[in-house]
Amino acid sequence: MTVKVAINGFGTIGKRVAEAVLKQDDMELVGVTKTRPDYLAKAASLRGLLYVPEEKLQDFEKSGIEVAGTLDELLRKVDVVVDATPGGIGKEYKKVYEKYGVKAIFQGGEKHEVAGFSFSTLCNYEEAHGKQYARVVSCNTTGLLRVLCTLHKEIGIEKVRATIVRRGADPHETKRGPINAIVPNPVTLPSHHGIDVRTVLDIDIATTAVVVPTTIMHLHVLNIVLKENVSKEKILEALEAAPRILVIPSEFSGIKDTAKIIEMARDMGRKRYDLNELAVFEESISVNGKELFLMQAVHQESIVVPENIDAIRALATNVSKEESIRKTDSTLGLVKTFDDVLKVISRFE
Amino acid sequence: MTVKVAINGFGTIGKRVAEAVLKQDDMELVGVTKTRPDYLAKAASLRGLLYVPEEKLQDFEKSGIEVAGTLDELLRKVDVVVDATPGGIGKEYKKVYEKYGVKAIFQGGEKHEVAGFSFSTLCNYEEAHGKQYARVVSCNTTGLLRVLCTLHKEIGIEKVRATIVRRGADPHETKRGPINAIVPNPVTLPSHHGIDVRTVLDIDIATTAVVVPTTIMHLHVLNIVLKENVSKEKILEALEAAPRILVIPSEFSGIKDTAKIIEMARDMGRKRYDLNELAVFEESISVNGKELFLMQAVHQESIVVPENIDAIRALATNVSKEESIRKTDSTLGLVKTFDDVLKVISRFE
Repeated sequence: MTVKVAINGFGTIGKRVAEAVLKQDDMELVGVTKTRPDYLAKAASLRGLLYVPEEKLQDFEKSGIEVAGTLDELLRKVDVVVDATPGGIGKEYKKVYEKYGVKAIFQGGEKHEVAGFSFSTLCNYEEAHGKQYARVVSCNTTGLLRVLCTLHKEIGIEKVRATIVRRGADPHETKRGPINAIVPNPVTLPSHHGIDVRTVLDIDIATTAVVVPTTIMHLHVLNIVLKENVSKEKILEALEAAPRILVIPSEFSGIKDTAKIIEMARDMGRKRYDLNELAVFEESISVNGKELFLMQAVHQESIVVPENIDAIRALATNVSKEESIRKTDSTLGLVKTFDDVLKVISRFE
Repeated sequence: MTVKVAINGFGTIGKRVAEAVLKQDDMELVGVTKTRPDYLAKAASLRGLLYVPEEKLQDFEKSGIEVAGTLDELLRKVDVVVDATPGGIGKEYKKVYEKYGVKAIFQGGEKHEVAGFSFSTLCNYEEAHGKQYARVVSCNTTGLLRVLCTLHKEIGIEKVRATIVRRGADPHETKRGPINAIVPNPVTLPSHHGIDVRTVLDIDIATTAVVVPTTIMHLHVLNIVLKENVSKEKILEALEAAPRILVIPSEFSGIKDTAKIIEMARDMGRKRYDLNELAVFEESISVNGKELFLMQAVHQESIVVPENIDAIRALATNVSKEESIRKTDSTLGLVKTFDDVLKVISRFE
């Protein structure tokens, strides 16, 4: 069975999920929608994939970019729509998705209540089966949950305190900042990230966040109290065994900051230097009794792409969690270990 | 005939030229050298390509990275070495290249006198035939010369005044700046770029330069006085007909700054978002009588890669300029027009 998929919103997340859908043998990308005529819209149009909201038809006609139809026409043809519209807009579109009885996947920019179910593959894939709506949690929450669900299952977590150091803008966002400040985000504690984690995993967690002038990655400083004493080896073993977590040996590799992580992804030939994997700095893992510290980096533009693909399968098929992870990760070329990273780089293609 | 090539220095330029050499059917990459054991050295080692200076053998042994031999051993096996060592170091290595009678290509970080011949494909490919040494001019000079040699041949140039707005650091350089200043570079006018242009093209040119806090591209503001009155159409026609110059229609595409140009390269799936083409903002081209203004963007990490490949052919073979450009540009996937850009993006791979 092939799941027919539409992507509503063809920006940072939408274009990546669209390309990921094109790589799945159990999915068909029927179309994408865009509201502004630009070079990406034109490229989608060349492939006959471009649909637009009815009220935007004139704008596209003026710009000479041919459209395949309207959003409504697209929704009639699909089983699942991935809503990748800007934060808060998905709620408005939900009415349209309801009208056509199409299953919908929202992004972390929407409130939990819009879908009524927040999704993160390693935590609750199975619970999504048969649901009409799901919300893939944000990039930061996805990064947190990959580690937290892994450690909670393996060892048990008592408490999490974490600081999220957020990037100020995405690389293409020339009008967003800060460009010379550190912004408490928000200044009233806690930040929403911990609250968002709890829509998926019920643990004691409080997060704080600041925004800094960088475009390439977020960085998390995690302080976790586990349910029992552990060794650094045990933590490493658990993280290395989990999918989508890449432990990076900084001393050996020379990769000691987010810029070097991105340079690694560039050397790997990753399209747009995307790193779908959560990157954990191996040397940052510090254990004292039940207490664990670590630092991890999140590629904000791409980390949620595998979870979106899994969410499509969870809602629309009976494919198991393990099988979905296997399919998603192999088609997207995800790596498990730093040795895999080296093998990819050594192709020099 | 296959040209056997070594790359001395496996950093920003070296790794890119090495990968480009691997794509040429008339060249063989025999090995690369690196002085620091890191993840890139390990990846080269996995392919049996890693050679190191004799005095560094111990460092690599300690780090457990296997080497195929020493730099001296590598030089005995090749016809041409591409020196991609840091600026000013190539001069020191020249003695070693001389010792083994190997032809050498230096980068723009070396003085003109080190090679005695400065190279830029569109300007003086033919003059390089049979030479023992050539120096591929720097990224900024390469960007300037692509446009200046094109316009000088087509129309004739009387005078050039240009301001080079330079990026402060490459993306991976976490210890370089500025990060919050605009630096006259140098404060004593003119900058070296115009002088460097004159090592290849004898015209009246004066340049000034400033460094700004960005990592992704340089931008040039050109003011050119031509030998005759021209129309904007004539300029456009000349630039569009030239290889390795990409004219970008900003209004139509929405690509109005260097960040958006890089986003375009990412959407094209360019490895490391490299843009070997010089990018000219179409709307910036302004003509008044003999006077021309335009703005162009230079991807500092990759623009000189095609010229390095051509320089290998120019020094070591009888391949003509046109044939070398054809081979280089098709193997590296260079585009000629914005329509080609759209076609590449629309693959959505």
